[in-house]
Amino acid sequence: MEKEDFLREPVQHIDIKSFDSTPIIEGMRHMSFTARDTAAAADILNMMINDPECTIILCIAGSTSAAGCMQIYADMVKHNMVDAVVATGATIVDMDFFEALGFAHYKGSSVADDRQLRRLYIDRIYDTYIDEEQLQICDNTVKKIADALDPRAWSSREFIREMGRYLVDHAVKHDSLIETAYEQDVPIFCPAFSDSSAGFGLVAHQVERPDDHVAIDSVKDFRELTEIKMRSDISGLFIVGGGVPKNFAQDTVICAELLGKPVKMHRYAVQITVADPRDGGCSGSTLKEAASWGKVDTNHEQMVFAEAAGVLPLIVSYAYHKRAWEKRTPRRWSRIFQ
Amino acid sequence: MEKEDFLREPVQHIDIKSFDSTPIIEGMRHMSFTARDTAAAADILNMMINDPECTIILCIAGSTSAAGCMQIYADMVKHNMVDAVVATGATIVDMDFFEALGFAHYKGSSVADDRQLRRLYIDRIYDTYIDEEQLQICDNTVKKIADALDPRAWSSREFIREMGRYLVDHAVKHDSLIETAYEQDVPIFCPAFSDSSAGFGLVAHQVERPDDHVAIDSVKDFRELTEIKMRSDISGLFIVGGGVPKNFAQDTVICAELLGKPVKMHRYAVQITVADPRDGGCSGSTLKEAASWGKVDTNHEQMVFAEAAGVLPLIVSYAYHKRAWEKRTPRRWSRIFQ
Amino acid sequence: MEKEDFLREPVQHIDIKSFDSTPIIEGMRHMSFTARDTAAAADILNMMINDPECTIILCIAGSTSAAGCMQIYADMVKHNMVDAVVATGATIVDMDFFEALGFAHYKGSSVADDRQLRRLYIDRIYDTYIDEEQLQICDNTVKKIADALDPRAWSSREFIREMGRYLVDHAVKHDSLIETAYEQDVPIFCPAFSDSSAGFGLVAHQVERPDDHVAIDSVKDFRELTEIKMRSDISGLFIVGGGVPKNFAQDTVICAELLGKPVKMHRYAVQITVADPRDGGCSGSTLKEAASWGKVDTNHEQMVFAEAAGVLPLIVSYAYHKRAWEKRTPRRWSRIFQ
Amino acid sequence: MEKEDFLREPVQHIDIKSFDSTPIIEGMRHMSFTARDTAAAADILNMMINDPECTIILCIAGSTSAAGCMQIYADMVKHNMVDAVVATGATIVDMDFFEALGFAHYKGSSVADDRQLRRLYIDRIYDTYIDEEQLQICDNTVKKIADALDPRAWSSREFIREMGRYLVDHAVKHDSLIETAYEQDVPIFCPAFSDSSAGFGLVAHQVERPDDHVAIDSVKDFRELTEIKMRSDISGLFIVGGGVPKNFAQDTVICAELLGKPVKMHRYAVQITVADPRDGGCSGSTLKEAASWGKVDTNHEQMVFAEAAGVLPLIVSYAYHKRAWEKRTPRRWSRIFQ
Repeated sequence: MEKEDFLREPVQHIDIKSFDSTPIIEGMRHMSFTARDTAAAADILNMMINDPECTIILCIAGSTSAAGCMQIYADMVKHNMVDAVVATGATIVDMDFFEALGFAHYKGSSVADDRQLRRLYIDRIYDTYIDEEQLQICDNTVKKIADALDPRAWSSREFIREMGRYLVDHAVKHDSLIETAYEQDVPIFCPAFSDSSAGFGLVAHQVERPDDHVAIDSVKDFRELTEIKMRSDISGLFIVGGGVPKNFAQDTVICAELLGKPVKMHRYAVQITVADPRDGGCSGSTLKEAASWGKVDTNHEQMVFAEAAGVLPLIVSYAYHKRAWEKRTPRRWSRIFQ
Repeated sequence: MEKEDFLREPVQHIDIKSFDSTPIIEGMRHMSFTARDTAAAADILNMMINDPECTIILCIAGSTSAAGCMQIYADMVKHNMVDAVVATGATIVDMDFFEALGFAHYKGSSVADDRQLRRLYIDRIYDTYIDEEQLQICDNTVKKIADALDPRAWSSREFIREMGRYLVDHAVKHDSLIETAYEQDVPIFCPAFSDSSAGFGLVAHQVERPDDHVAIDSVKDFRELTEIKMRSDISGLFIVGGGVPKNFAQDTVICAELLGKPVKMHRYAVQITVADPRDGGCSGSTLKEAASWGKVDTNHEQMVFAEAAGVLPLIVSYAYHKRAWEKRTPRRWSRIFQ
Repeated sequence: MEKEDFLREPVQHIDIKSFDSTPIIEGMRHMSFTARDTAAAADILNMMINDPECTIILCIAGSTSAAGCMQIYADMVKHNMVDAVVATGATIVDMDFFEALGFAHYKGSSVADDRQLRRLYIDRIYDTYIDEEQLQICDNTVKKIADALDPRAWSSREFIREMGRYLVDHAVKHDSLIETAYEQDVPIFCPAFSDSSAGFGLVAHQVERPDDHVAIDSVKDFRELTEIKMRSDISGLFIVGGGVPKNFAQDTVICAELLGKPVKMHRYAVQITVADPRDGGCSGSTLKEAASWGKVDTNHEQMVFAEAAGVLPLIVSYAYHKRAWEKRTPRRWSRIFQ
Repeated sequence: MEKEDFLREPVQHIDIKSFDSTPIIEGMRHMSFTARDTAAAADILNMMINDPECTIILCIAGSTSAAGCMQIYADMVKHNMVDAVVATGATIVDMDFFEALGFAHYKGSSVADDRQLRRLYIDRIYDTYIDEEQLQICDNTVKKIADALDPRAWSSREFIREMGRYLVDHAVKHDSLIETAYEQDVPIFCPAFSDSSAGFGLVAHQVERPDDHVAIDSVKDFRELTEIKMRSDISGLFIVGGGVPKNFAQDTVICAELLGKPVKMHRYAVQITVADPRDGGCSGSTLKEAASWGKVDTNHEQMVFAEAAGVLPLIVSYAYHKRAWEKRTPRRWSRIFQ
């Protein structure tokens, strides 16, 4: 088989505006197990949107953007359901920026012959394929953006804003999360930015300019996100996956306290994950556990133990069709850093 | 808190006829991960229904009936989407028969104080509560049914048919799976029947009549289910959970071969489970693994790694609204045993 | 590749007497997560053995016997650490009886080509292979045993005792669990006996003798196990896997109560499993949940969330080398049914 | 209950030199499931140590250091079994540095009342407790170290080396991973350094010195780790947990290629994790999947699906007692950056 035979059917991103999950969520509310948890998560998301003082932070780890959820995230930002994003570098660069450049993810198989894929330069994420040669173009585009910037320490937020600016002019696909967030003044943070396609581009940039180059200062990211939390006493977390983004967003409460400006715990929190709590890792740790750390309030928190691609469409479609977002005032947190 | 405080909000069973999941399934088909698997499962269920020669066997383990999926199963039987049921005793007796007698499951909490529940005679299934005193009435009703029967070895199918007959006259809630299956001549098998509320009733029955009593012969169950498989060369499995029902239904292919009447492997198979394949247990073993045993064909098989209460409503609503079941001829397999 | 190429390296059963895990368990006791849970499980097993009034019930589901734990179970019985066994049919017949007849399990791969295995009549359990032709000999041996018995309703315990008697004369490998238990008067129960290789043999037996044959009455099993619980007020459960054996053994407490002879909850309980509690299935339900049902006391209970083949050798080696079993009086529960 | 009642029993770190797991690993090698995988992991670790050209990279995510595995990691470095460490910030700062300052983790309960813990300023990691007031001292010590450094962009490796230097003079407990690595010239990388107690200290440092401060440049980390990979063509990964450290270490192969200096894939790889592959996250993705990306060779790779605290002691004790490390020449990779 040739490379084209493997890269035939692109993943298509689900449009949660095109159907209304309300009757399903209403039915699930009176069930048990994951069904009830899913309905409770939808309710808490809707509560966040309805709370006029609440800043909503979307945290994304894992590969849901490659798996067809990319437009969900862009729609959340576009339709004023999210005020800040904390994500893995892969989500933002390898997936979102990558597709904005005109590339695609492809439907594949989880039981592929990985040696054959390697020979064809096809990368696999569970049951999804990527053309590695296209990914290298993505790496190089990040380098090109870095080459044009002031040689100083940047937060990932600042850098991603420059990627948004780039996409306004150069995007092949214009509804990416990065570009939408740029336009809506919604900041995007990647606390482990170099752990992604961006890392490759930035290393190449630094190696070429050993003395005078862009650095990515994750402390600055933490400072900036904490600044948002300090300005917005009330906040909610909508967490997909877990990992560094979850911990990073939770930690702002503690960081504000340390800086002498105590803030409220995150009032609302939802996490969708398949991670196991029993190894003490952050991804699987329950939101109740986070309460012991003083990070998350326990009145409105819900874990949904499910792979997110299967339940996100229901949860976000529900919140979208409740239309509470129409009455929200956008926070435009990006502006405080300009 | 008193008992009534815990048993306030009954679980309500979702009605997959009341909403149409088709647009969601259509969207999920082009995604990845659990979303695509869910759509593939819906497609395979629909293929089973469309195949005029296919006998569809519904296998149920776990507590989805307590969790709000009870009406889904009854609807599948009522609307000609299922020709035989293999289930755990708990599913059929503790949950379905129990609610048919007028009792309910209640919305509870997965982090309850189990000692307090114990004091109040409340039984917990993850986040769902049961009134143990009502369950004892269920036990005793099974005993009453057994007391009225011929003292001989019965298959669980025969016995459950008597429970159906009982419900026609005595049910408080008339759309139970047992009663619906009784009316549609859809046989129900519980290969581990005594491992349930029925077991309590039947032990009491036998202890009262040490020499002359009803016995439940699981070999007869296996013989009867194999008989169905031998008469219906083409078959499909729709498996919720795993466990004994999954293995039992799969094994009919091998049993037929052993009896000198080789049959085709199950042509279609879907399994929805959170079980892990890595301990070699039947629940988590993949359908591909079952292919090595000659039980399941691999052309149309799909594992959905999800807690079933969250995805069953989507899958079955899709198949229901495709309405291929309207054109099916009911198999009425119960009749071959009369 | 030929069949022999796949069936080259037999699984060898670990001998927990040949090494002493004590220093490892002692170290794990002061750690956290699975390490501490493993040590706690070892301690509770040792408490059961030290309690002079305690009947110890070993419950086995899953395929650990195929995976190299078979001798652990036989050693537990032989060395007076177990007074009754409740297991899946597969554990007792397909694995233990099968190897007693001289056959073996083989080291295989979890990413095998299952269609190829099918063509070669090799059955796969995760990463372990079985020669299906040998398994058919096992089926037929069960039939032969049944053919020689009185045509009446038997409990699985009674039938397995006959299998033990058969092995005394015919076994190729003499230290099987069945034969050891036969000799030690330790009863073995399989509440879903026909869901195994035994089922095939017994169906063939019944089909050949439609009017006059052996039936397997699982109600009788439940009655007998409850009888043991009623005679031994104090009891402990050592559960590997979960499933029907776990539920069946737990339920004896309730059954005794229903028969008007209330007994104590199981005083000790250990469960080793990878099952997830979140689908409400019995395998994954916590022992605390069982306390709400009045089945298990919560003072000495421990869940170990691990695949059992990796932790059983540590736990049982520890208890073996503590040698408390040397001072126990054997219960010989089989004798009460003779 | 008072705070002291919860913080009574410190976690004690297991000493893998004090027992020899060899006979257990030898027994597990001929079993199946997790047992065989554990033995295979031990063998591959030993192969890495025996390969004279191989650089061994230890990757740590999750909370095993809090759970009693801290000394295992320090022993691996001390006894020349590891040449570079990539870890989460929590592992290095919140756990290892924290204990080096004289503080402890405590044995707790996974079903604690998190609101009560919050009131007492006790943080919970699954079943383990931390005194939050002590953690704040840890934060502030990091700040103090930063305050004394040149205001420029540092890699986390450079910064952690300063922490090692600090511990030489100030440690209360002297066998920490940080101090041992400092002395052995083994570099430690935290690609998401600010996502930890260090982040709090560094934010405080930057807020106090808005114009002239230490920044942590994760690009520099990536550059440095890639430099090591380019100098050591042959390499092996020993991965506990997954997450950012796993991905970061794997990515060096691709990064070297991008810099025009193609290197071999990681020749050896072991990963111990409970993460699920089915959500496409990095933690759960198989090492075979990494092969499609060209990161890991498939000849000597082993996933062990287990919570690490339960299996690490066996695996590393085995490799320690094989004593191949005695013949290794230390790589001292820290020196190339000086």
